[in-house]
Amino acid sequence: MVVGGDAAGMSAASQARRFKGPDELEIVAFERGHFGSYSACGIPYWVGGQVGERAELIARTPAEHRERAIDLRTRTEVTEIDLAGGRVLSRDLESGAEEWTGYDKLVLATGARPVRPPVPGIDAPGVYGVQTLDDGQALLDGLSAVGGGGRAVVVGAGYIGVEMAEALLNRGFAVTVLNRGEQPMSTLDPDMGRLVHTAMDGLGIVTVNGAGVTGVRTGADGRAVAVATRDAEYPADVVVLGTGVEPETGLARAAGLPLGVYGGLLTDLSMRVRGREEIWAGGDCVEVLDLVSGRERHVPLGTHANKHGQVIGANVGGGYGTFPGVVGTAVSKVCDLEIARTGLRERDAAEVGLRYVTVTIESTSRAGYYPSAAPMTVKMLAERRTGRLLGVQIVGREGAAKRVDVAAVALTAGMTVEAMTALDLGYAPPFSPVWDPVLVAARKAVSAVRAAG
Amino acid sequence: MVVGGDAAGMSAASQARRFKGPDELEIVAFERGHFGSYSACGIPYWVGGQVGERAELIARTPAEHRERAIDLRTRTEVTEIDLAGGRVLSRDLESGAEEWTGYDKLVLATGARPVRPPVPGIDAPGVYGVQTLDDGQALLDGLSAVGGGGRAVVVGAGYIGVEMAEALLNRGFAVTVLNRGEQPMSTLDPDMGRLVHTAMDGLGIVTVNGAGVTGVRTGADGRAVAVATRDAEYPADVVVLGTGVEPETGLARAAGLPLGVYGGLLTDLSMRVRGREEIWAGGDCVEVLDLVSGRERHVPLGTHANKHGQVIGANVGGGYGTFPGVVGTAVSKVCDLEIARTGLRERDAAEVGLRYVTVTIESTSRAGYYPSAAPMTVKMLAERRTGRLLGVQIVGREGAAKRVDVAAVALTAGMTVEAMTALDLGYAPPFSPVWDPVLVAARKAVSAVRAAG
Repeated sequence: MVVGGDAAGMSAASQARRFKGPDELEIVAFERGHFGSYSACGIPYWVGGQVGERAELIARTPAEHRERAIDLRTRTEVTEIDLAGGRVLSRDLESGAEEWTGYDKLVLATGARPVRPPVPGIDAPGVYGVQTLDDGQALLDGLSAVGGGGRAVVVGAGYIGVEMAEALLNRGFAVTVLNRGEQPMSTLDPDMGRLVHTAMDGLGIVTVNGAGVTGVRTGADGRAVAVATRDAEYPADVVVLGTGVEPETGLARAAGLPLGVYGGLLTDLSMRVRGREEIWAGGDCVEVLDLVSGRERHVPLGTHANKHGQVIGANVGGGYGTFPGVVGTAVSKVCDLEIARTGLRERDAAEVGLRYVTVTIESTSRAGYYPSAAPMTVKMLAERRTGRLLGVQIVGREGAAKRVDVAAVALTAGMTVEAMTALDLGYAPPFSPVWDPVLVAARKAVSAVRAAG
Repeated sequence: MVVGGDAAGMSAASQARRFKGPDELEIVAFERGHFGSYSACGIPYWVGGQVGERAELIARTPAEHRERAIDLRTRTEVTEIDLAGGRVLSRDLESGAEEWTGYDKLVLATGARPVRPPVPGIDAPGVYGVQTLDDGQALLDGLSAVGGGGRAVVVGAGYIGVEMAEALLNRGFAVTVLNRGEQPMSTLDPDMGRLVHTAMDGLGIVTVNGAGVTGVRTGADGRAVAVATRDAEYPADVVVLGTGVEPETGLARAAGLPLGVYGGLLTDLSMRVRGREEIWAGGDCVEVLDLVSGRERHVPLGTHANKHGQVIGANVGGGYGTFPGVVGTAVSKVCDLEIARTGLRERDAAEVGLRYVTVTIESTSRAGYYPSAAPMTVKMLAERRTGRLLGVQIVGREGAAKRVDVAAVALTAGMTVEAMTALDLGYAPPFSPVWDPVLVAARKAVSAVRAAG
C-alpha cells in the first residue's frame, strides 16, 4: 500500500511491480489530488507557458497504472494510519465515504506542503501555492482571470520563488519578490545570492530583501489585494507562495513514527522507516543523510524522490537497493541566469564544526575567444589542512549550472581540491576554457588551503 | 631553457617565474614558429570564422613574456640537444645563424606534428596541416585564393578532421571527408561513430569510410587538384590533413631520451624525463598514463599541455606538483552535433584484458516536456563482476558533451556503476530529465553487470 501517488510513491509501485507480478503482490496507492505520477518540478514552466499542456507533466495516468495492476485511487485521502492494526483509513474526497484498508507493507510518500507564513489573510483566495498540479491549475486559472499586465507578488526567494518570478514575468505580470532574508537564494551564501539579486534586477524583477510578510490584505470580495511587510504594502492581483516546503508528515506524526528535526520521516539506508520492519518512506516527506556534513537534512527534490522510489520498490519487491544520501546538489534558473550549488555553504560548514577556506573566481563557459562564451562565478569551499572539497556554488549564464555535477561527484568521492586540479574534464573551445572554471576554482582553493595552514 | 613556445612550454615558463624571480632564474624559450602561447585548439574556429582575429587565439605575445623576464625567441629552431654538454644548438630561421646555448634545466615541449600519409603528392602546395597558427594562416590564405563555392577534401575523420569539416562548411566549401576507418571518430566505438556519420550526412558533409588515401594528384602548377583513394578520385581546391598527430620527438630521439610505443617522451609523475634529473617534458610530445587501462598513451590536448606546464613550472621553480594521468576525456562538435568520450572503448578494454559489458541508452538534455530538450545517446562500459565504470561515450546535441565530465570524475574515483546510480547530480527541468542521462546509463549498466554474472 502506497500513500501519496507522485514521484516517490508511484516509482516505488512501478519498481515493485517489475519484481513481482499481480499474483504475488497487490498494489494499492492513495492520492488525494486529481493526478498521480507527475513532474511537480515542471509546474513553474507550465505556469510560465514553456510547457503548453498539463498533460505533458504527467508521466503516467491512473489508467496506465491500472493497466500494470497498480490500483491508483486519486481524490482519496488517507486520514489515519493504524500501525497496530496494519490498516489505513481513507476518505473519498468526492463522496465523503470512509473506509479502512489493510496492508502488509506500507510506503509513505506523502510529499511536502508549502510553508505558509502564519499571518492574517495568508489563506485567502488569490494566494496560491505551487506544490501540486491542482495548485498549478488554480494559479493558471487565477492568472487568466486577471489577464496580462497584472501585478504579482511572490513571497519567498528560494528556488520556487525565483522560478515562479520567471513564470509570472513570462505571463506578462509585473513581479515583486518579497524575501525575508539578506539575499535571494538562501541556499547559496549571501555573496553569491547577491549576484542573483543583481541579475533579477536586470530582468525587471523587483526583489525586496529583509521583507518578512506580516499579512495579506483582502478586498471586499475576500480576495487578496496586497501583501504587507513591516515597511510597506505591495498591491497584488495574485500572490504566489514561494516560501519553500516542509515535510507533509502529519499522518506519520499522529501514528508515532520517528521524525527528524526538520519534521521529515527518518529511514535507514534501505528507506525503511527506522524501527518499522513493514514501513518504507521516500520523497519529500523524509529527511536524507547529507554525506558532506554527516547530518540529516530535508531536501525536497524530484530526483531524490525518484531514486527513493526505485530503492523502496526493489526492497518491497524482494530485491535490494539502498539510498546512501545526498551531497546537496541543486540547479535552477531565472530566465537566462543559471544558479547551482552542491555541498556545504559557509554556515553549514561552521555549524558542523568544520574549518574551511573559500575562494571565488570568474571564468567563462567556453574559451574566452569563442562566440557566446558566457561569464560565470564559481565559489568553492575546502576544509583547512586536509583540503577536502566541501562545497561549490555557481552563478552564471548558459553552461554554468550543470558544471556543478563535477563537484557533486568529487564530493561523493571525498576528493581534495588538490586532486581536483588534475581532473581530466572535457576540453574544446566551444565547451570550456582550457582550464575548466571548476578547475580554476580548485587551483585557487589549493593555494588558499596552503596559505591558511 | 624551454624548447617549444606553446601551451606546455610557456605555461612551464610562466609558472616557474611565479616561483622564482629573474635574479634567481633565467628563462629562455625557443619557438620555431612566428607565435607562442596560443590556442592551437582554437584554429578550426578561426578558420571557420567564429573567431574573427588570429590575435584572439594568442594568450600572451613574446613582448608580454619578455616583460615578465621570459626570453621567448620565435622563429628559432632547436636542431640538436647535447645532453653531455648541457646545451642546445639553435638556428635563427630568418638569418640562418646557429648558436649553442647552455642550460641547467631543460623543458621539452616540442608538441606534435600532423601525420602525413606517405603517399605521392602529400607535400604539394594546396595540402594543409592545421597544427600551428602558421598552418592556420596558410590555410586561410589558401581558402581566400579559392573563394567561396570551392571543393575541400579533408583527409581523416578524427577530432581535427570533423572540426575542420565544420570550418570549411562554414566558409562555403563543399566538403568531403575521407576516412580510412570503419566510421568517423575512431576515438569512439564504431556503433557510436555511426551516429556521427549519420549526423554529418545530415549537415551535407560527405563522409567516405574505408577510404585510405593513395595519392594527391597535382596540376600543371604543382598544386594539389585531387585526392585519390583505391576506389575513386576526389577533386579538391584545398586538401586539409585531419589525420591526427604524432609526438614531435625527433630531437629527443636523436639525443637518446626515452620514448614510448607511440613515440612520445616518457616522464615520471613530476613530468621529469625518466632517468634525467635535469630534463622535464610536457604537452603533445609526451605519453601520459591512462589511469583506467594502466597503459601509457599519446593524448595531444591543450588542457593536458597546460596542466603539464603548471606541474613542470612548479617543480623547476622549486615547488612541487605532479600529473597523475588522464582518463581519456575528449569533447568535440560538428556544427550542432556534440561528441564526447572518456575512459576505454571496447577495443581498449579488450586489449588490456578487461571483460566488460556495454549498454546504450537514449535520453534528452532537458526534461522531455521542456522546450528544446535535445536527444542524446549514451554508451557505457563497465567491468564484469566488479561493475567498475570503464568508459562513456556520448553523441547528441546541445548539452550532451560536457555530461561526460561526470563520468570522468567517476572514473578518476574508481566508482562502480552501482555507486553512480546514487549520484546527486543537478536536476531541474531546464537542465536534465529527473534521471540524468548518465544515471540512466548507469542503471542499465548495473542490470547488465548482474545479468552477465
